[in-house]
Amino acid sequence: MPKSRLEAFSDGVIAIIITIMVLELKVPHGTSWQDLRPLFPVFISYVISFTFIAIYWNNHHHMVDSAHRVTGWVLWANHALLFCLTLFPLMIRWIDEAGVTPWPVASFGVVLSLASLAYRALQFALSAAEGEGSRIREVMRRPLKEYSSLALYILAIVLAFFQPYLSVAIYVFAAALWIIPDRRFVRPAT
Amino acid sequence: MPKSRLEAFSDGVIAIIITIMVLELKVPHGTSWQDLRPLFPVFISYVISFTFIAIYWNNHHHMVDSAHRVTGWVLWANHALLFCLTLFPLMIRWIDEAGVTPWPVASFGVVLSLASLAYRALQFALSAAEGEGSRIREVMRRPLKEYSSLALYILAIVLAFFQPYLSVAIYVFAAALWIIPDRRFVRPAT
Amino acid sequence: MPKSRLEAFSDGVIAIIITIMVLELKVPHGTSWQDLRPLFPVFISYVISFTFIAIYWNNHHHMVDSAHRVTGWVLWANHALLFCLTLFPLMIRWIDEAGVTPWPVASFGVVLSLASLAYRALQFALSAAEGEGSRIREVMRRPLKEYSSLALYILAIVLAFFQPYLSVAIYVFAAALWIIPDRRFVRPAT
Amino acid sequence: MPKSRLEAFSDGVIAIIITIMVLELKVPHGTSWQDLRPLFPVFISYVISFTFIAIYWNNHHHMVDSAHRVTGWVLWANHALLFCLTLFPLMIRWIDEAGVTPWPVASFGVVLSLASLAYRALQFALSAAEGEGSRIREVMRRPLKEYSSLALYILAIVLAFFQPYLSVAIYVFAAALWIIPDRRFVRPAT
Repeated sequence: MPKSRLEAFSDGVIAIIITIMVLELKVPHGTSWQDLRPLFPVFISYVISFTFIAIYWNNHHHMVDSAHRVTGWVLWANHALLFCLTLFPLMIRWIDEAGVTPWPVASFGVVLSLASLAYRALQFALSAAEGEGSRIREVMRRPLKEYSSLALYILAIVLAFFQPYLSVAIYVFAAALWIIPDRRFVRPAT
Repeated sequence: MPKSRLEAFSDGVIAIIITIMVLELKVPHGTSWQDLRPLFPVFISYVISFTFIAIYWNNHHHMVDSAHRVTGWVLWANHALLFCLTLFPLMIRWIDEAGVTPWPVASFGVVLSLASLAYRALQFALSAAEGEGSRIREVMRRPLKEYSSLALYILAIVLAFFQPYLSVAIYVFAAALWIIPDRRFVRPAT
Repeated sequence: MPKSRLEAFSDGVIAIIITIMVLELKVPHGTSWQDLRPLFPVFISYVISFTFIAIYWNNHHHMVDSAHRVTGWVLWANHALLFCLTLFPLMIRWIDEAGVTPWPVASFGVVLSLASLAYRALQFALSAAEGEGSRIREVMRRPLKEYSSLALYILAIVLAFFQPYLSVAIYVFAAALWIIPDRRFVRPAT
Repeated sequence: MPKSRLEAFSDGVIAIIITIMVLELKVPHGTSWQDLRPLFPVFISYVISFTFIAIYWNNHHHMVDSAHRVTGWVLWANHALLFCLTLFPLMIRWIDEAGVTPWPVASFGVVLSLASLAYRALQFALSAAEGEGSRIREVMRRPLKEYSSLALYILAIVLAFFQPYLSVAIYVFAAALWIIPDRRFVRPAT
């Protein structure tokens, strides 16, 4: 089964998710500088979401690039990841409507955690399909980044009920951790 | 006529359908746990629809992969299938507005039945284009899964007017039947 | 300049247009059979528009397939065609809001005429890029179908102000004329 | 790292942006000619935006075509460019709601300036990846068009607060400057 259609489909879905988020943004209704101010939180959440989706695309790109076989498990782990990513526009809309308040901010963290778990499942599915000695299995031995960002998301979910803006800061920090393409796929597996 | 553009176009349309469904979901307007509860039915219907579209993509992928010729009939059977799939977001929106009530739930079954018939038509068109001894003709000799799921959809349409939640359960069951990629294309044609 | 990216971009835009039209459809607000009736006109216009976009995709596919060079003129004629096609969802929305009334029905014909002219311009641009003896130039010598459908659109625009439903019938007839993929690209140029 | 997926992803995002802008357009609510008149400004802004996005696609196409290596910097400069382009639909919606008034018209210029800077950053990233003697470096030695259009955007931003229609005229003029595909990539580097 060729992986090119899996890549094309994932590229398509991710390209659409990253683009339709903008449909959820509101435009200012007044014409003064003050009318623009309430739009900052949702614009920031748009920038963060765009960055996360871009990170997922980068890493998906690298991971699938080093894979050779597509199994049924790989297809469904990939669908699960894409499903989680489709929830980002919903989160943007929620924050747009409810502001930086506990429930939407915590839910953003839940979506990030689910996406992170689905990505991990995709790693397992690809690694099972590749077998011993593959590049992906090499990478999976060092899951520090995956687990530390998952821990950050859980921390942010809890904090959202007390200091939602602090949770947002944690999301920004987690995004910064991942902004560099996953070097483990680039550097030679030693 | 190369089939790569047919694949690319179908991938594009399916990727968009699976992604814009999320635009039809509403966000909760309150901030308590009770405010989230009314969103469950529509979220479940989103998950079911996402799964069905993913199943169609998987099977389309397998079927077209084993084909070699694209005729005018193949193009139009494919367009008919894509047309039926574009009705899923509409069904989501309807269930979102009207809840799990007879008409939208029955219509969901009608859309599933039409998509199933269009898929069958695409099988016939591809098989006619391929000729004797092709893999697709092999697969079409065992249409048990196709006809039993069609029977389930018709049952669910009728039941929707009495027990809509039971119809939803039938849709979940039918999705589960198809969740494994169509092994008939993978296993050697004997 | 490779034509594969032109194809990919056009496929992407057409795939999106054909899919987002469904976002313009309304769902019925009541639950009885009568509540569904007012949705028929817009549903029919959705089916017609879907068919026209599918026809354009089929023919674009065939025409570009037989081309070898992409010039600046080809790019811009292609952009003009895509621009006209993006107006279809707008027409659907208008008919959805205003019903089968003179202005939207006439505008639908204007959009069809513009798309037809842009398609003709793309033919000229490709033919200029291909030079003497090319398949496209062969095809362009027999523009009967192009000009007769343009005449039909103009007739429908005028009729829209008297009998809008008759205009709709003309659009259906014009679509039927084109539903068979353009055989002139398939049959050998004699 | 293959550049084909970068092209596919960029094509996908740009195809979606250019298509969803139409979702932001309103349809006329009356049926007379006067009811169509207030739609002109937003329709013109749609045409201008469509043209700008098409120009970016053309030039992106040419530039990436002449590149050979994709680095992390290239990925992120490309994401930044795509991010700026996603703001076009938002500008359309704003102009649709607020008319040709200072703030949206000035913001349109800000978006154009940011996109222009991101494009310049992508040029630098690609040129750094390509090294000495590459086609891109050749082109970057003649950045007259880039800087003069940036100067025009800044002029238009300032003018927006006095004569917004004059700013629109400047945008049209700037688009006209770029409408010809970037010949510097086509003509041999001497």
